[in-house]
Amino acid sequence: MKKKKKVNAAILIIGNEILSGRTQDKNIAFISKWLNQNCGISVSEVRIIPDVENTIIKNIKYLSNQFNYVFTTGGIGPTHDDITAQSIAKAFKVKYDYHKEAFKILKNYYGKKKFNDGRKKMAMMPVTAKLIYNPSSAAPGFITKNVLSLPGVPSILNSMIENCKKYLIKGLKVHSNTINIFSVESNISKQLGIIQKKYKKFVDIGSYPFFRLGKIGVSIVSRSTSKSELNKVRKDLIKIIKYKKIKILKI
Amino acid sequence: MKKKKKVNAAILIIGNEILSGRTQDKNIAFISKWLNQNCGISVSEVRIIPDVENTIIKNIKYLSNQFNYVFTTGGIGPTHDDITAQSIAKAFKVKYDYHKEAFKILKNYYGKKKFNDGRKKMAMMPVTAKLIYNPSSAAPGFITKNVLSLPGVPSILNSMIENCKKYLIKGLKVHSNTINIFSVESNISKQLGIIQKKYKKFVDIGSYPFFRLGKIGVSIVSRSTSKSELNKVRKDLIKIIKYKKIKILKI
Repeated sequence: MKKKKKVNAAILIIGNEILSGRTQDKNIAFISKWLNQNCGISVSEVRIIPDVENTIIKNIKYLSNQFNYVFTTGGIGPTHDDITAQSIAKAFKVKYDYHKEAFKILKNYYGKKKFNDGRKKMAMMPVTAKLIYNPSSAAPGFITKNVLSLPGVPSILNSMIENCKKYLIKGLKVHSNTINIFSVESNISKQLGIIQKKYKKFVDIGSYPFFRLGKIGVSIVSRSTSKSELNKVRKDLIKIIKYKKIKILKI
Repeated sequence: MKKKKKVNAAILIIGNEILSGRTQDKNIAFISKWLNQNCGISVSEVRIIPDVENTIIKNIKYLSNQFNYVFTTGGIGPTHDDITAQSIAKAFKVKYDYHKEAFKILKNYYGKKKFNDGRKKMAMMPVTAKLIYNPSSAAPGFITKNVLSLPGVPSILNSMIENCKKYLIKGLKVHSNTINIFSVESNISKQLGIIQKKYKKFVDIGSYPFFRLGKIGVSIVSRSTSKSELNKVRKDLIKIIKYKKIKILKI
């Protein structure tokens, strides 16, 4: 069996509505969690950019070169501001035209009479792309080189994500372990730093303050591809927390 | 009176917890809306990156060069994974040490006895930085050149944002106008494209599908710094919607 390696990805959110704050993004957290849990792929960078062709092209070129995979969301619908497909075609110098299979899928779905120009536009993409099937509203996503393009509407994206799996090489899953305590960060920051140093090769330890029941708490999150290293870190953390007589929360 | 110009900004979210999907970001939409409504500043790009020094330095250099302002969130707390301040100091080749005023603020806030090493760390930053006061938990944000650094916890960030205002040059506010209709996008995509072309110099028109009461709808959002151009677009849009006998929603 081939040993799994670390596999990474970037997410490129394309859309003025996210940049302006009009729409709260929900796709980043969803894709990132799904990739890690189902494919052992870690998201290493996210960018949110406007619907501007040059900006899309520049970012596609850069990210597809830097990371194993790039997931784009948004800009693949029927309207004038949906320019993701044409921009990706330009970035990779692939012909942008009706994709035969996509055209067939959409024609079948709408029927001849309702297959208007707007709907036909959703079959326009890099002609060599492989398709990501869309069980909820037919218009497929597509893969160009290592770039997977999905729609921006979360419910449709969510329904399609499983169909990305067969195109992805699986990597090492990142496991995580969380300890929630009622304490302020500065009370444990020194010890956390020492433990992080000790395990820096295999484990990343993060510390995130929260407020609950009117008290200040900290989530200490350790992340690693090795479960055994994660257990060692947990034991060390529990030791210092108990020594400091800090309360550990059950959830 | 000096005529206002377009002013833009980038947001740089620093934190493994956002990239991994563990934490749902709330700062992007908040900062973006606040900047536009209060300062007439548009966010042109957002990046989310991990707590890795070289990555932070590279992005700070690039974004501060490309945009009028950069807002960073996260990584300015007391723990080992809080490396935003030191990375920004390195990016701009400014000395990283105790900031006299920040040290004084934190010492007063905690009192001599409780001012431990973790808390002292929150006074470490580029020594020439100007401070962004923090009314909720004392530890200040800071401004280095055109980069404004804020904490990642939304409630604390929200309490500090007004204190950024005095450092920002105001730009032209972007106004927006939304028409919600019960229709599919492809039904109006052709006409939308024609109207966008007619007004492309001053108005951006975006189209965003939604689901409500079991029906499919579209929000048509026009954005412009000119209210009069926005009104013209609205009139044109209403005309085609009425012609197509599509229902306009009140909200």
